[in-house]
Amino acid sequence: MNNFLQHCRDLIGERYVLTDIDQQAVYLSEWRQRRKGKACAVLLPANTEQVAGLVKLCSERRIAITPQGGNTGLVFGSIPDSSGAAVLLSLKRLNQVRQVDIDNNTMTVEAGCLLNVIQNTADQHQRLFPLSLASEGSCTIGGNLSTNAGGTAVLRYGNTRELCLGLEVVTAEGHIWNGLRSLRKDNTGYDLRDVFIGAEGTLGIITAAVLKLFPKPTSVVTAFISLDNVENALQLLHLMQRYHADSLTAFELINSCSLELVLQHIPQVSRIFYEKTAYYVLLELSNTDTFDNSSRKLESSIEIAFNQALIRDAAIAQTLSQAANCWKTRESISEAQARQGKNIKHDVSLPISRIAEFVKVCDAALSTAYPGCQLVTFGHLGDGNLHYNVSPPIEISSEIFLEKQCEVNRVVHDLVHQFDGSISAEHGIGELKKDELQRYKSPVELAMMRQIKSALDPHNLMNPGKIF
Amino acid sequence: MNNFLQHCRDLIGERYVLTDIDQQAVYLSEWRQRRKGKACAVLLPANTEQVAGLVKLCSERRIAITPQGGNTGLVFGSIPDSSGAAVLLSLKRLNQVRQVDIDNNTMTVEAGCLLNVIQNTADQHQRLFPLSLASEGSCTIGGNLSTNAGGTAVLRYGNTRELCLGLEVVTAEGHIWNGLRSLRKDNTGYDLRDVFIGAEGTLGIITAAVLKLFPKPTSVVTAFISLDNVENALQLLHLMQRYHADSLTAFELINSCSLELVLQHIPQVSRIFYEKTAYYVLLELSNTDTFDNSSRKLESSIEIAFNQALIRDAAIAQTLSQAANCWKTRESISEAQARQGKNIKHDVSLPISRIAEFVKVCDAALSTAYPGCQLVTFGHLGDGNLHYNVSPPIEISSEIFLEKQCEVNRVVHDLVHQFDGSISAEHGIGELKKDELQRYKSPVELAMMRQIKSALDPHNLMNPGKIF
Repeated sequence: MNNFLQHCRDLIGERYVLTDIDQQAVYLSEWRQRRKGKACAVLLPANTEQVAGLVKLCSERRIAITPQGGNTGLVFGSIPDSSGAAVLLSLKRLNQVRQVDIDNNTMTVEAGCLLNVIQNTADQHQRLFPLSLASEGSCTIGGNLSTNAGGTAVLRYGNTRELCLGLEVVTAEGHIWNGLRSLRKDNTGYDLRDVFIGAEGTLGIITAAVLKLFPKPTSVVTAFISLDNVENALQLLHLMQRYHADSLTAFELINSCSLELVLQHIPQVSRIFYEKTAYYVLLELSNTDTFDNSSRKLESSIEIAFNQALIRDAAIAQTLSQAANCWKTRESISEAQARQGKNIKHDVSLPISRIAEFVKVCDAALSTAYPGCQLVTFGHLGDGNLHYNVSPPIEISSEIFLEKQCEVNRVVHDLVHQFDGSISAEHGIGELKKDELQRYKSPVELAMMRQIKSALDPHNLMNPGKIF
Repeated sequence: MNNFLQHCRDLIGERYVLTDIDQQAVYLSEWRQRRKGKACAVLLPANTEQVAGLVKLCSERRIAITPQGGNTGLVFGSIPDSSGAAVLLSLKRLNQVRQVDIDNNTMTVEAGCLLNVIQNTADQHQRLFPLSLASEGSCTIGGNLSTNAGGTAVLRYGNTRELCLGLEVVTAEGHIWNGLRSLRKDNTGYDLRDVFIGAEGTLGIITAAVLKLFPKPTSVVTAFISLDNVENALQLLHLMQRYHADSLTAFELINSCSLELVLQHIPQVSRIFYEKTAYYVLLELSNTDTFDNSSRKLESSIEIAFNQALIRDAAIAQTLSQAANCWKTRESISEAQARQGKNIKHDVSLPISRIAEFVKVCDAALSTAYPGCQLVTFGHLGDGNLHYNVSPPIEISSEIFLEKQCEVNRVVHDLVHQFDGSISAEHGIGELKKDELQRYKSPVELAMMRQIKSALDPHNLMNPGKIF
């Protein structure tokens, strides 16, 4: 082991091989302090060649590697187990924007670049990099790619997978694959890029990527709408897509319970409608039209929705601060929940045509099994993705209710499965959901996943214990 | 062998196991009659279970399988070799649209569905399935998926890969993988879907797919523009993207030589501009606005381009027949070339920022090496995809010039590689380009491709001799 550590030091420099427990701590704790791991060393390489050198060393000695980006994941995917046998390999020093190619609408970035650095760099070049999520100030693009992150702009721009044209990867054997292509069309063999995207570091280490950029919208119009049920929200979605097609860039659902939680716990957020309804929708149109044109078009489609009795009320934000208040409402739900106390979370997706029925059936099943439980339902309705969270009845403490976590998961996930949905829409599997994966994936699919894992990582050294 | 054929007959019925050479002929000849293969039987299963049963039989007896859709490919990917040892498995009887889910904007189709049947079905439901290519009346979606087909709408909607949410696949072992998910977000394990898409039938057989549908545009505006060089065409592309963003659904380049060929050989096409220029662009805006609004916006952006001296002349189609004439011009280039005589074809893609330089350098290299050669350059400029074809000098016959094919390919492909491009943008590798693949792909990437091939098809029975 000492010999191994000395080789690591020779390769990347003494100060970048952390063996001191205090120095290691921040890398080995999940950010919500729900999980701690151990590592024989935390390694901080500076570039792709150093990553490849370290992986080769580990491969020769059969030492497992957990790669880590911003350590902002929600499924314990970037924390090693508690044996202390693995190394943690942080990509955070690979943080260069290697190239911005304006005329190709692409940007080549290293895995450790923070998402908001990438967003800002695009913006400075009058371009949009649309991936946007709550942790954008601390998550890295390598993590976003490895988990195929979702966020609030998937409706129009797709998941991280759809935003990437090429990858650079260090394979499990320590070879560097230069797949940094910046092409819109390339049909020369198997799609290795998409094998590594979403693989959660279990097949190799993504060290750099070519990202797609988009024209920067010239107008963004935000509206907050109140309505009675999920069915109407879905009808509104279809109506908005018919009238605005791709200009519709966000369509978020917020139920009454979520909204009231925010208003109770987040003082910066102000109430938009005084009449309370069961559900609300936050929607956004963005395009290259003027604000006035866009706003007028939105108004007329809202009027149609109103005449069809789909909605109760609607407010189109007229100022940046009104728009910010709408988004702050949506984005504060997690924080408001945390202030209220722990609850049981789900990150599910469903065919959009089946969401209304799913919510009805699942709400009923939970209310019967746990009378008085509070359903904190919100999410990216336009993508069929709900954060379907369950808070305890008022008279029961979080701690006692959380003992029911497995039971509640079973009710929700069994129904999701029955409705042809996914038990992990955007958070991945990591270590947290690997048992659930075994339960719901078909044996044929699991077998193929294992075949690919064995082919590309025969000694099971890349992030072992995750996904499988 | 007789025993094997009898098992096939028992499984799918006597009349669907073709062993007569005349009956087999249409399946075993490439459609342009450039290649013929042999098969011990042509098998025509009716459904996924029958496909699985046949694959299991073949797997047990180590009999190779070449799957086939519409047999419209350009790289000899769906014709078995001349040994007669393999079976040809046609998917054409799996031709049912299984489900249209309007509220989810998805359609579930079997692999043998013709592309234009899918387009028409979407249209009947007021939706758009945007994949569009010359062979849409005879190609099947299974073939489109297996080759990740491109076409004229990639700029806005992506390749076939981006139009598919889920797959049903018969694995090399004859198991049925039901991956027919219709979700916009699903992060539960490896992306097997994209492993099979574009694999040209070498890993398993796609039997059905869930496709994405889009809102049907309410207005389509077509324009034909003349200009002096590729550089200006690219500046025009950027300007149009800035003003129209996603409304810009097609941006096709046509050089002078291509246009004159069409006007000479295709009597239905009429000349649009009397002043001849070196290049032309066909562009299309489609969206949910009115035709008048869209047309007005296009006019004002064209005016800007004119004032910046990017373009020489422009015509916005005012009638359907004018628009049809623009598209007929573009779509007749291949036919016009065929009437003129054979030429040497390339299907390349480049970073959009490097196309102008590539064309300049490659044109010069070819004109020096083959004085008087005619460059038939056209393609999907918005995607960086050129069909860069080389016709013989007027005084040299096609037959003599075609002897130079390998040399010409080398000049073009070496330059494409040097400019970070792809030697197969949308046609795939098949058997035709497998030597080129070995030349230009990195050993690391080829090794990973082989690892995946061995993992999923250990006995090399799925379309052997293709890609590798």
